Amino acid sequence: MKKSVRGEPVDKFQDIDRIFHPKSIALVGTSPDPNNWAGQMIPEALVEFKYDGNLFFVSRKSNEMWGFKTYPSIKDIPVSVDYVICSIAARFTPKLMEECASKGVRAVHLFTSGFSETGEEEGMRLEEKITQIARDNGIRIIGPNSPGIYCPESRLTFSPILPKESGPVACLSQSGGHCIRFLRLGGTRGLRFSKVVAYGNGCDLSVTDFLEYLAHDQETKVIALYIEGIRDGRRFFDVLKNTAKSKPVVVHKGGHTNAGTRAAASHTGSLTGEERIWDALCKQASVIRVHSIDEVVDTALAFVFMTPPKGKNVAVVGYGGGVSVQAADDCESAGLSAPLFPQEIRDRLRSFTPDANNSVRNPVDTQWLVWDPGKFVDTVRIVSEWGGIDFLIMPLAIDMFPIEREHELLDQMIKSVTESKKVCSKPMVVVLHEGTSPEILGKTLLLQERLSSLGLPVYPTLGRAAKAIGKFIHHCHLT
Amino acid sequence: MKKSVRGEPVDKFQDIDRIFHPKSIALVGTSPDPNNWAGQMIPEALVEFKYDGNLFFVSRKSNEMWGFKTYPSIKDIPVSVDYVICSIAARFTPKLMEECASKGVRAVHLFTSGFSETGEEEGMRLEEKITQIARDNGIRIIGPNSPGIYCPESRLTFSPILPKESGPVACLSQSGGHCIRFLRLGGTRGLRFSKVVAYGNGCDLSVTDFLEYLAHDQETKVIALYIEGIRDGRRFFDVLKNTAKSKPVVVHKGGHTNAGTRAAASHTGSLTGEERIWDALCKQASVIRVHSIDEVVDTALAFVFMTPPKGKNVAVVGYGGGVSVQAADDCESAGLSAPLFPQEIRDRLRSFTPDANNSVRNPVDTQWLVWDPGKFVDTVRIVSEWGGIDFLIMPLAIDMFPIEREHELLDQMIKSVTESKKVCSKPMVVVLHEGTSPEILGKTLLLQERLSSLGLPVYPTLGRAAKAIGKFIHHCHLT
Repeated sequence: MKKSVRGEPVDKFQDIDRIFHPKSIALVGTSPDPNNWAGQMIPEALVEFKYDGNLFFVSRKSNEMWGFKTYPSIKDIPVSVDYVICSIAARFTPKLMEECASKGVRAVHLFTSGFSETGEEEGMRLEEKITQIARDNGIRIIGPNSPGIYCPESRLTFSPILPKESGPVACLSQSGGHCIRFLRLGGTRGLRFSKVVAYGNGCDLSVTDFLEYLAHDQETKVIALYIEGIRDGRRFFDVLKNTAKSKPVVVHKGGHTNAGTRAAASHTGSLTGEERIWDALCKQASVIRVHSIDEVVDTALAFVFMTPPKGKNVAVVGYGGGVSVQAADDCESAGLSAPLFPQEIRDRLRSFTPDANNSVRNPVDTQWLVWDPGKFVDTVRIVSEWGGIDFLIMPLAIDMFPIEREHELLDQMIKSVTESKKVCSKPMVVVLHEGTSPEILGKTLLLQERLSSLGLPVYPTLGRAAKAIGKFIHHCHLT
Repeated sequence: MKKSVRGEPVDKFQDIDRIFHPKSIALVGTSPDPNNWAGQMIPEALVEFKYDGNLFFVSRKSNEMWGFKTYPSIKDIPVSVDYVICSIAARFTPKLMEECASKGVRAVHLFTSGFSETGEEEGMRLEEKITQIARDNGIRIIGPNSPGIYCPESRLTFSPILPKESGPVACLSQSGGHCIRFLRLGGTRGLRFSKVVAYGNGCDLSVTDFLEYLAHDQETKVIALYIEGIRDGRRFFDVLKNTAKSKPVVVHKGGHTNAGTRAAASHTGSLTGEERIWDALCKQASVIRVHSIDEVVDTALAFVFMTPPKGKNVAVVGYGGGVSVQAADDCESAGLSAPLFPQEIRDRLRSFTPDANNSVRNPVDTQWLVWDPGKFVDTVRIVSEWGGIDFLIMPLAIDMFPIEREHELLDQMIKSVTESKKVCSKPMVVVLHEGTSPEILGKTLLLQERLSSLGLPVYPTLGRAAKAIGKFIHHCHLT
């Protein structure tokens, strides 16, 4: 199962590589009690993912869990254990760490909360104590106060509903909720993941350690970070800067306002640092700064799905007057440019496009998107061949159509886009408006997945598409 | 059916009032051909809405349409006709206008496109011609190049899937697509509408005429405008300024960039005017400027659902660490303030809230949202009684939960919010994260509708909520 997938230097990262690929896992503090959600999430996830190493459950209360025989303690497990996942209450964790030390465990992930993030004396002392035990015994800690690791390659996961196949995107997140939202939203948009760590308080292994590993991980092409605060500022920024030289790093920094800073302290015990310093350092490091999880997804999507356009000139090709105006405004506001087509291109388009309800100047507002995929393909071919544009945005707006026809018309638009991809010589971006009824909402999600599977980046609004693509192109031309 | 619902002066607006409440409608150019979507949309809408005035169909091709006997021409209709809806090709419209004049028709809505918006000589000449016929014969034109009027009170509508009941929001939109998207998105968020006009090229009745009417319309409490360009600048801004004195006006101006300006010219034949002039005039007129249809909905929602908070101090009460940090950052970025609770409030909350995984400082990150609605109600009571905050934002994030439990946990959260509304002495705003699976997407839409029906404004992201509420409070304190 474990492969050597990274380049040089390998040795330095062996500890972390082992953590992503454990051969045996013991779960402590799990519970099949339906009211104990936290006690069930990870076991259910590992069973669903068919984790194929050795899986052990530790419990004094029941003899069997999820079809596995249980052991009263870590020490009673008859073979060696690589990785322990701990969900017991914080006050019992020092004892567990001592047991792990005796057992020769190399890594402990603490899902458990109640440490430094509480701001209370006791929690802070406990965190110091387990960190010390870990250091004294060569154990690495993931967490505490975090869901831990998702690495589809080794079938290690904290949630059962994430993609089972691997992909090029890595994520390090101080927040478990943000991390899962990123993975789920990204998953529906076609992103797949290499290594993901929701690292919480990061008392031992920090974001910096994992980032350094990811910089050299050959599976990882794009890195997304959600950070509230860092403990090793100087080293972090050196590593960030080095990492950003070889692969794009999208950074969402939580706690950039006064209230956000306070919330971050309560959440992960983080000292967030001053906003203006963060801003300057992100610019120096050439990372892409964003401000929400949606934006992390939007931006990562461009890096994963698009070949870098040669420049910032866009052709907008869709159907709908208001939508065309919005597209043009959003593109230009995001630093892109939608140049007027030369007369020759307009004439060629006009030769088969009626005057009424259509425009051929850029934006192209063409009824063929909905009524004739063949003519839409011709439109895209003519537009994409013009040297004055570098990529295309296609807004698919279903707003005007009667609800009972939306299915059919959506399918027609998807066909037009799919066919036109075959003749389009430049990168294409699709904007698929979210539906406004429960039925169509579900359908647009499925169509979004279908378009993603063709390698197309799909955005829910023109504004979000333009912003993400703008940042993508800006970054490509910076580096 | 027609009521006098406006204040003084009444006479000035009688023409327009009649347009919103026609006693008889004739449809010209409709077609039951399933490939002719435009020919079906309005008849299907009127039938679905059970328009209860006299409805006539004009057709030379068939004897019956939608169960109605047809007439070969307007002139053959045996009784008088208030309002004609025209979907025939542009070149035939002058003849139709002449027939309407002979028949004594007072208003013609031209769904037909192919006029000045094409930028072609012929289209411009046609538009001038029909406008002249209208002026010579006392006919008012709505459009051309627009879906026209939606007035639930009189069951006049251009789309069958809009809310059938009336409400306080009026909308004037130069784009039909934007208009329908606004109505559909707003509808799912609980907005209901008084009078709506998608006015397209506005060759006769302009946005200014309708705006002046709406200023005096007692049904209308909030006005949303989507404008690409205006023809009567001085008068428009006088009317806008006057209107904004009595009710909030949310303005989305399309074509505020170079490419947008060009797109607007192609779309509705508009000269958009310079951005810096628009910006200055909007500020002078105290209107609320926004930049997308989503933002029009978000902002209108605050005005409709919220009593104006006394100030900008917000308590964030939800569940999830990352979500709390995001909420705090988004609120402060939008000019709101999330003050730290005093020790006394924190102590009261802490007395029944555990340390681990919870925070009581503001943001409040409380497990009770999901696990104990009773204790959540206690939390909200204590928070809302504190004089230091003016309103509450409740983020409901379902991201962390296993998919098979999402239904149950969503229901629990909705219960917590619903119960807490009963004890909350201050305005409440809900942020309900969109689901990430087709099934949960549909469910969140239904829950959103349920919360809306309780009078709660619901937003899909913290950022959008904070931005809209920030603009709302800013406006309330300006005026």
